[in-house]
Amino acid sequence: MAELRQNMVTKEWVIISNERAKRPDNYIQSQRHPTTETQTFFDPSCPFCPGNEELDLEIECLPPNGAWQTRVVYNKFPALSKDDNLTRTFHGVHRTISGVGHHEIVVESPRHNTTLALMSAIEIKLVLETYYSRGWDIRKDPRIEQIIYFKNHGERAGASLKHPHSQIIGLPVVPGHIRSRIDEARRYFDDTGNCAYCIMMGEELENKERLVTTSEYFAAFVLYAAPSPFHIWVIPRKHSVSFLYSQADELADLGHIVRDVLRRLYIGLRDPAYNLIIRSAPVKEISNDYLHWYVTIVPRLSHTAGFELGSGIFINPAIPEESAEFLRNVEI
Amino acid sequence: MAELRQNMVTKEWVIISNERAKRPDNYIQSQRHPTTETQTFFDPSCPFCPGNEELDLEIECLPPNGAWQTRVVYNKFPALSKDDNLTRTFHGVHRTISGVGHHEIVVESPRHNTTLALMSAIEIKLVLETYYSRGWDIRKDPRIEQIIYFKNHGERAGASLKHPHSQIIGLPVVPGHIRSRIDEARRYFDDTGNCAYCIMMGEELENKERLVTTSEYFAAFVLYAAPSPFHIWVIPRKHSVSFLYSQADELADLGHIVRDVLRRLYIGLRDPAYNLIIRSAPVKEISNDYLHWYVTIVPRLSHTAGFELGSGIFINPAIPEESAEFLRNVEI
Repeated sequence: MAELRQNMVTKEWVIISNERAKRPDNYIQSQRHPTTETQTFFDPSCPFCPGNEELDLEIECLPPNGAWQTRVVYNKFPALSKDDNLTRTFHGVHRTISGVGHHEIVVESPRHNTTLALMSAIEIKLVLETYYSRGWDIRKDPRIEQIIYFKNHGERAGASLKHPHSQIIGLPVVPGHIRSRIDEARRYFDDTGNCAYCIMMGEELENKERLVTTSEYFAAFVLYAAPSPFHIWVIPRKHSVSFLYSQADELADLGHIVRDVLRRLYIGLRDPAYNLIIRSAPVKEISNDYLHWYVTIVPRLSHTAGFELGSGIFINPAIPEESAEFLRNVEI
Repeated sequence: MAELRQNMVTKEWVIISNERAKRPDNYIQSQRHPTTETQTFFDPSCPFCPGNEELDLEIECLPPNGAWQTRVVYNKFPALSKDDNLTRTFHGVHRTISGVGHHEIVVESPRHNTTLALMSAIEIKLVLETYYSRGWDIRKDPRIEQIIYFKNHGERAGASLKHPHSQIIGLPVVPGHIRSRIDEARRYFDDTGNCAYCIMMGEELENKERLVTTSEYFAAFVLYAAPSPFHIWVIPRKHSVSFLYSQADELADLGHIVRDVLRRLYIGLRDPAYNLIIRSAPVKEISNDYLHWYVTIVPRLSHTAGFELGSGIFINPAIPEESAEFLRNVEI
């Protein structure tokens, strides 16, 4: 029989549906993304390939001198623009803010036909250092309240360009969705004196059923209340509100564990489309006892329909404990 | 330049992105769903076609005697099961509720190759009366806190069977997503003494820019802060918390306006996939001054990616005023 499970941190319920249950190997993809199979090292028509760089869009490169390994550029079609004034107006009863913000692209490698799962931990560390560098820079803009770091891998996850890249958006508001999570975490802290994320991680490390892998500074597990198949959190063991407080050795370690998880997905499920998101506190929430940053990895293996839109509750046909066991057994 | 717009009722922000703007006719579909073009009136392999009924799954039919026009059956693969006890347990720190609930299918017509947009207002009224009848019945189950009525039309909206049908799910919890909206509406009422939905509707009726169509008892408009292209609300003019308090003439009128809106989408955009959801108060919230039921119609014309997952903010490349004007001009 099915069960409703609650995410103790966000308080969101999901339905884990064993009537409709699919075994983990039902999610193995029939073909890999063209990125790695049929594409070449260099694509003459790709704006992200070396030699095709539009220099006026460039923000920064790592390493700063010589051939770049990662490169940050302005999005040519930005969702928000940094060159405008922050204004708040009313249109009748409706509230509007001018579309001020930052929208940057992080090119993750000079190679057209690679992806994070095929890169080395050192290369992934460089991508994370690039996020870190951009995050600290965007944070200086006093108009910015929240930074979202995210990656869309594969068409089903919203990627339109094949060359491996991720995006950073700086927003002039804290989204309501994030405010709700903050409220829930603060309520948990007020009730118990603990960070809900620390407690959840402690349970997953002890129970081990949903654990995917661990590293010195991080733990990766399939969520107890996973809203979709193989929905994974990679969370720092040490309480910290922001990704931007990570030390160099923590970023290096994060590179290792992110690579580990992504390789398990790549090899085990044959390169599923996924989104990767760094969830970090609003930039002006410098420190507190109840927020805890983490990385979410969401393979895009199911669709949302009317029920999810209407209730906010997801129906997940994959049993989280089975998904985690499957990933633990993948030889990377 | 882009702008952030806030839904005054839910407080959710969206980015209306004119850098990426697409004109309304960019959303015209290249082909219609197979339902109406290539399918036949009767499909011998369809479980919903007359003659193929599994009688042990039947719950009720309208009309109750003679040939049915709508028929309600148990979902063969229910997300939740009604035949179990409601139990709440802890698994370590995690909360679980047994998968108790109702999951029913409403077959909307005996004809295999039709869809609401091609049905008469009388036929749609019968579908709505079927929801109404089932809603009142499910409501009697004291374990049920929330009923979601929804329709998935087209593969992209999550429909797996072609025969026109919708679904009703009765949940043993009020979803957090709905609780948040209730909290926001109550806060608005406490601040202003008004129902936020009534105020929003008043603005749309007066301003007319986003109005799609109106009827005696309802108004249909594209949301000012539409999270996705052509996102429409059909809302009763009279303050009421629940769809289940509708009178017969209101249901008939709702049949007319839903048909009107769906025909504009069907003809104007050539049968896009969509979800239709009735958002009604939790069943035990009998009455109050701040909740207001409505129907949402969400054409599935864009994808969600990492940014939406991470922020809860949607980027909509369609200008709501242009979408509404386009729909107003469709000849139905």
